[in-house]
Amino acid sequence: MCPPGCLHSICEKATRRGLLKTGFTLGLGAAAAAFPGTPQAQAAPTSFSETVDLSHALYEGFPTFSGEKWFTVEHLVTFAKDKVNLNRWTIVEHSGTHMDAPIHFSADGLTADLIPISDLIVPVAVINIASRAAENADTSLTPDDIKAWEAKNGPLPEGCCVVMNSGWHKLLDDPKFTGNDGEKRNHTPGFHVETAQFLIGERNVKGIGVDTLSLDTGLNSGGAFPVHYEWLGSGRWGVECLANLDAIPEVGARLFLGIPKVRGATGGPTRVIALL
Amino acid sequence: MCPPGCLHSICEKATRRGLLKTGFTLGLGAAAAAFPGTPQAQAAPTSFSETVDLSHALYEGFPTFSGEKWFTVEHLVTFAKDKVNLNRWTIVEHSGTHMDAPIHFSADGLTADLIPISDLIVPVAVINIASRAAENADTSLTPDDIKAWEAKNGPLPEGCCVVMNSGWHKLLDDPKFTGNDGEKRNHTPGFHVETAQFLIGERNVKGIGVDTLSLDTGLNSGGAFPVHYEWLGSGRWGVECLANLDAIPEVGARLFLGIPKVRGATGGPTRVIALL
Repeated sequence: MCPPGCLHSICEKATRRGLLKTGFTLGLGAAAAAFPGTPQAQAAPTSFSETVDLSHALYEGFPTFSGEKWFTVEHLVTFAKDKVNLNRWTIVEHSGTHMDAPIHFSADGLTADLIPISDLIVPVAVINIASRAAENADTSLTPDDIKAWEAKNGPLPEGCCVVMNSGWHKLLDDPKFTGNDGEKRNHTPGFHVETAQFLIGERNVKGIGVDTLSLDTGLNSGGAFPVHYEWLGSGRWGVECLANLDAIPEVGARLFLGIPKVRGATGGPTRVIALL
Repeated sequence: MCPPGCLHSICEKATRRGLLKTGFTLGLGAAAAAFPGTPQAQAAPTSFSETVDLSHALYEGFPTFSGEKWFTVEHLVTFAKDKVNLNRWTIVEHSGTHMDAPIHFSADGLTADLIPISDLIVPVAVINIASRAAENADTSLTPDDIKAWEAKNGPLPEGCCVVMNSGWHKLLDDPKFTGNDGEKRNHTPGFHVETAQFLIGERNVKGIGVDTLSLDTGLNSGGAFPVHYEWLGSGRWGVECLANLDAIPEVGARLFLGIPKVRGATGGPTRVIALL
């Protein structure tokens, strides 16, 4: 049984629509060929001289795509009374800036603690669709956007993370961030499922990232989640709610994904820092 | 009011012993001079070609110095039933491999989200006292240990983290890890308060780290916490429960501290990765 509320509805829809049989099993096939199950050395020495924080600060009331409250804080002791400050969090793994591990939308994908650390420091390709998204919040990042980026910047770096810069990272305090239309639909940009399929089949990419609440478009995040099933089901990871994307270049930076190592985790709040 | 149980006892003892008036106010004085409140650029390009995970995997029942259970997981939905895996954690910020922010033992030190990211990627000096700790679990890392390390390796790197390798990182599944003697005392190595004072006054060090449950010795972690008050009170951070310390050199590596960015946090579970 699902818990009550939105998650219940998501699960029901996902099951009913049989997405397991389409996106996910396709993903499993790809995973057999590309499963990143073993640690890999860094290919060559990496150098950096600047760092940029790509993480939003998490707080009670941080937006979620379902509208549920996913993060609360208890002040167990305080310095004023107790001479120690110490808090306890109650947190859904997918709160704030966070990673999705393959297991999040698969039966037996890697849990967050088992993602090789060499996959946590990767080149990043930033694909800017902000002007299009400003006109149409339901737009998606397509294979043509990838090809246009490559025409300008050269092939995607091997083993990179492809990040969508939709401009949404600047809208955290705006109702547009969730894009909820009052009729249980969200209008936010995301990856197109064909882009996930293209990157799995035609490129060597470890992760995809977005500055919105979901790898999928908002309209696809109410139960269908085709990109989640396709991408995470292929054994790859995602990162959501990235901040500050205008501060890094389209090509040349590297992401460091500081995800807590929690046994069996389907994801977790993640400190994402760009190395330039 | 403190909550019931061990934390209550810790708070009572800390207040009663007047540590605020000794260690902490001394620390505040130092903080005025050395407060790391503004972002700093990396001093020079940093290069690395290998990565080593220095984080233990966190699980329900992971040891805590108080013996309390600080981490639990609820499986909100599962793939088997719901076609999605998603968990909720209830977690005290100082669980598993984790950072202590200055605010943890101070009235107005930096919260974890405000630590400049340039302070989250720092050189590391590893000081091995494992053979002494194997003979005497109550031993501490002293100023003489720092001086002996420098006689061998040269001055501590500017802005580094000084890490104690006590061998405890190999004892996670052993009762020695908490060192509890059944009489409410823990026997585990830690920093000596004179070492904290020496590093604050005589060296440029951003953090200290341990492979035990506390920056302080176990005997000093039942209420007194002199190193916590001194070090965190000076505006500096700590990192506890480091793993795998034998896999990095005494000098030459760099730490990356991936702490989730949570507003007002006194610390948090942290992915610590060494860059070599």
